[in-house]
Order: sequence, then C-alpha cells, then structure tokens
Amino acid sequence: MNKTTQQEIHLANRPVGLPTMTAFDFVEKAIPVLEENEVLVRTLYLSVDPYMRGRMIDAKSYIPPFQLNEVITGGAVGEVIDSKSDAFKRGDVVTGNLNWAEYTAASDKAIRKIDPTLAPITTHLGILGMPGLTAYFGLLDIGKPQKGETVVVSGAAGAVGSVVGQIAKLKGARVVGIAGTDEKIDYLISELGFDAAVNYKKDSFADDLKEALPNGVDVYFDNVGGVVTDAVFTHLNKFARIPLCGAISSYNNESKEVGPRPQSAMIKTSALMKGFTVGDYTADFNTAATDLGTWLSEGKLKYEETIVEGFEHIPDAFLGLFKGTNLGKMLVKIADPEVAVL
Amino acid sequence: MNKTTQQEIHLANRPVGLPTMTAFDFVEKAIPVLEENEVLVRTLYLSVDPYMRGRMIDAKSYIPPFQLNEVITGGAVGEVIDSKSDAFKRGDVVTGNLNWAEYTAASDKAIRKIDPTLAPITTHLGILGMPGLTAYFGLLDIGKPQKGETVVVSGAAGAVGSVVGQIAKLKGARVVGIAGTDEKIDYLISELGFDAAVNYKKDSFADDLKEALPNGVDVYFDNVGGVVTDAVFTHLNKFARIPLCGAISSYNNESKEVGPRPQSAMIKTSALMKGFTVGDYTADFNTAATDLGTWLSEGKLKYEETIVEGFEHIPDAFLGLFKGTNLGKMLVKIADPEVAVL
Repeated sequence: MNKTTQQEIHLANRPVGLPTMTAFDFVEKAIPVLEENEVLVRTLYLSVDPYMRGRMIDAKSYIPPFQLNEVITGGAVGEVIDSKSDAFKRGDVVTGNLNWAEYTAASDKAIRKIDPTLAPITTHLGILGMPGLTAYFGLLDIGKPQKGETVVVSGAAGAVGSVVGQIAKLKGARVVGIAGTDEKIDYLISELGFDAAVNYKKDSFADDLKEALPNGVDVYFDNVGGVVTDAVFTHLNKFARIPLCGAISSYNNESKEVGPRPQSAMIKTSALMKGFTVGDYTADFNTAATDLGTWLSEGKLKYEETIVEGFEHIPDAFLGLFKGTNLGKMLVKIADPEVAVL
Repeated sequence: MNKTTQQEIHLANRPVGLPTMTAFDFVEKAIPVLEENEVLVRTLYLSVDPYMRGRMIDAKSYIPPFQLNEVITGGAVGEVIDSKSDAFKRGDVVTGNLNWAEYTAASDKAIRKIDPTLAPITTHLGILGMPGLTAYFGLLDIGKPQKGETVVVSGAAGAVGSVVGQIAKLKGARVVGIAGTDEKIDYLISELGFDAAVNYKKDSFADDLKEALPNGVDVYFDNVGGVVTDAVFTHLNKFARIPLCGAISSYNNESKEVGPRPQSAMIKTSALMKGFTVGDYTADFNTAATDLGTWLSEGKLKYEETIVEGFEHIPDAFLGLFKGTNLGKMLVKIADPEVAVL
C-alpha cells in the first residue's frame, strides 16, 4: 500500500430537519498506523441505516451521538490489509463498526471474521446482520405471531421489514406490508409472498388498508411511526402486539412530533407496545444467526439490496433512506477486495 | 315492600365533552317482578368509576356502550329482598353490576354473595373489588416492580392508584405518586407511606417531578394520560414498564387528543407499554382477592372512601370523578339495609 492519506467523512454540524450535504465534511487524513491488537481494515461495503440519523443529534439514547468534526462510523464489511493481532491475518474478511473512510484501524475486539464462502459478504450487513437480527427478535420475542393471525409491517420493503414479513409467513401468519411505491408493493406480493401490501402514499390508503385487514391486526411491527401508524391503530385486535423498531417518519422532524395519543386504543384492546433495539438481545445472537442462515440457505428467505457505488456517494445513500429510494438493504460499495478471495 | 314504583337513572343523550346533569334522566318505573333464577336486589352502595364515561359513547370497546333511554348500570353492593333462585335468600349481601335504581332484578349468575363479617361491604367496590384487582394485576403482571426500583403512579389518590402504590411498597419499590391537591399529596405520604408525591396542578410540576425521581422511572402505572404522562415519559429508564390502566384526562375530550408521540422515547429505552382491563385476568381473580384480603386484614393495605349520600346525587358523584373531588374510592350510599345484618 503506497497511499499514506485517505478521505474520511466527518459530521460537520448537527442537522435540523432533513440533513443535506452540508452536514458532511470530506476530510483528508493520514491512513492510521496500527497499535498492538489493532487491525487495518480496508472498507469494502458500508451500511447506511435510519438509526444513524439519531446519532447526529446530541441527545441521550441507547447509543452515543456522533461527535462534531469527527469521523462518522457505521456497520461495514472490509478486508484485513495489515494486522497487529493474533486473531486476524491479511486477507480475512471482517464485519463490525468501521469509519466512513477507506481504511480503519480497528481494535481486534470490535470486529469479527466472516466466511465469504457461506453467503455473500453483504448479507452480514443485511439479512444475516443487524437488520435481520432486528427483524427476528422484534417479531418473535415481542410480536409472537401465531398461525392464522394477521401481521402488519410498515417500511415493509426495507432491510428490516422485508425480513419481518417473511419470518411471519414462515410462522403461518397472514402478512400485510405497507410501503411507499408501487414497485415495492409489487415486490412484496410477487417476490416475498406477502398476502397483501398497501401503498401509504395513495389517497386511498385508509380504504386500501381496511380492505387488506378483514380480520384486523394482531401484530404491528412498526418501522415508521407517524400517520401510517395512526391508520394501523384503528384496526388493532384484542391483545395486539406492537414491536416498536423505528419511527423513520419522524427522524427529521424539527420539533417533537404530535399525533393522536395511542393510549386509549391500547386500553380498549389490551394491546402491548414495546420498544427494542437489537442490542437488547446479544445473548441470543447465535441462535438467531443460525436460524436466519438456515432459512436463507434453504431458500425460505429472500433479500434485495440497493447498492450505491463509490465513497463519495455515502451521504447520498444515507439521505436516500428518508426518501425511500432503497428496495431492501441500502449499501455503499467502496471498493473491490485487493487481497481477500471471495 | 309496599312500594310498586321506583326511580331509575337513564342515559338521556351521548354527552360531548364533560357531561352535565342533562345527560341523566330520572325516570319513574315499576319495581321489577322476578322471573325464575332471578333475585330482587335492593341497592345499598353504588360505585361510580371513570371507565363508565367510555360507555356513554357509542363506540366499540372492551365493554358495550350504555343504550340511550335505558337504565345505566354499574358496580354495586346490595341486599337480597326476594329470590327466585336457590343460590340466594332474603338477607344475603351481594355484589355485581346493578342498575342505577333502588331495586334490580338480577340474574343469579350476575351477582355473588359477600361475607359482611370479613370486611366492610363497601370494600368489595374498592380495595377488594374491581379497583383493587385492577391495581393488583396491572402492577404485578405488567409493571413487575423489583426491589429498589422506582414506581410512579398517576391518579395516585384514587381507588386504583392508592392500591398500586401500596402494593409497590410491599414489593420493596420506591413509590412516587402524582395527584391534584395538596390534601391528596399529604395523604399519600403521611397515610399511605409513599416516598414522594407531586401535585401536577402546580406550576412547578416538572421540576417537582424531576426532584422526586433521582433514579428515573422503572414502572409508570398510568391512570390519567395527557400532559402528566408526557412529563413522566421524559424520565423513563431502560426497560421501563408502563401498565396503561386509564386516561381520565382525555375521557371528556371533544376530539381525539393529540400529544407528543411516545414511540421515540420507548425505542430509546426499550420500554414496554400495555393496556389492560381487569377482565383480562378473570382466571386469576381468586388468587388476587386472597392476597388483597390478607394484606388488608394484616393492616398492610389502607384505603379511603369518599361517600356521597342519596340516590339523587349519583350523577354528581360520577361527575366529581373528573374534578378529582374524591380521595380513594368514590361511592354513593343509596340506603341502609332493611333485612341484611351487617
């Protein structure tokens, strides 16, 4: 490696409302020199995820905020270029939180090796990674769908939602997806086998949703919040369960969002709503990863990826999440491997 | 019994906003003649409860609405005057849903005998009845307070809230009550042993609440909803549990109440919120009633009653619930027993 400097993307300010490119600074930095137990990882794919919007705000949450004028980090897959750790060697393919940079000096405790022969390496950022695990735990631990029940999922064509719906089908539920383009609606029904799917951007949304829910809603896996959620709440069945995964509709709001309070509907139906993050379930990651891997290898789970190419387009890809430009997992391809054999 | 007619109170219209006396019709009706397996019950005490406001609206809920121009019904204690059932005899003291009337012809399946020697008969409408059971199940099944955790209860000086706080103390929690008068605040701390209590009507409410919650909130038993609940939500701890019992602050709203959406705070804290009604727990009524009766007889639970006297004041008592005029259980005394020996 002859290069000594690289591009990093820093958080330039704390955006108010929908972020624009001005939130991101491209900064030339020295490629880091390794210390003991560190590994130099060359980024191959970066994951952009809705939760990262929350880290741009200086507020207490389940994960600390990004620091101003420091590099942004996120889920990634990379190849080991150099290693001062006994646990990794040049050519290993790894996943973990990496910098929005071409190279990251990662602690050997912060990354783990993946086997590129078992599944495409990008699946570790999607169906076999954080989004897949999120879908698995939220649906099965909180939603607990029973055979014949109706499961509704918002953000249904996204990285999490698409897995939620497919697992719910595996469990024998009737599955209704909510998404924002006709292409996504078609994908959910034709490719993923959803029983129905409804476009929330259509004027007929309320009627379409009602028609898709002849037996009400037993599980509502909520990725989006806002008015979509308000509409679903009018169809809750007795003892409905609502895994709260995200509220992407509100992430760019400039003030605290108001809406109809959900409490009355929940009392009437004895409904349960529970927030969660995948980090709540670390003890069960292995079981979940095994299940997901098995279902994937058996062809019972499908996935889609929207891959944006080029380091300079990372901010575009991130911002695209809020416009719904992705089908399935949104990824940025940074580089082809130099050393690793895929 | 020489009387042949009696007063009943009918629902005259479906009130919008805070009901007034015009919602209630006093109607002269024949005292009913018994059919087989019916019991003539003379009303001694009627219970007025916030949930009854919901039954005045023509909307689907966990309990059907009151019918227009028909008698209102509610929890009551009475004495058996006449019986065409083998299960009851004249002089028995019974509880069940009775008419807002001096006499009710009740199915023998709809009432149950109570033993007036074990506890005052009014306790079957309060601490040993629906409100006590509601507190018990919501707190223990959903809230699950652990020793040393902080439990907050709104409507803390009411029939449900006062039991919630005391059971939470028995379970070793730190208990903070929210109520609307200084008299109630004093009662919660001095009489019921709450660790702190905060008056939500004071301008300093937000600061007072913060001061009362140095360790945040692990369980929030919500009887009131609205802005009180908004304030509590800013203090939720990781994995907080929120039994949703009522939302009395909104029962008289003329349109659907809007407020800050709770979902984001719940995702950040992995909080659980669950609506419930006491009817969800019928299978466990005996266990709960035994526990409550034992704690009461051991002096571990205290209770207060606000007793309004006279049939003609039933509507006043009911409307008083929304002004918070009651300390503990709000009851209406209709008559002293004629036959039963208490």
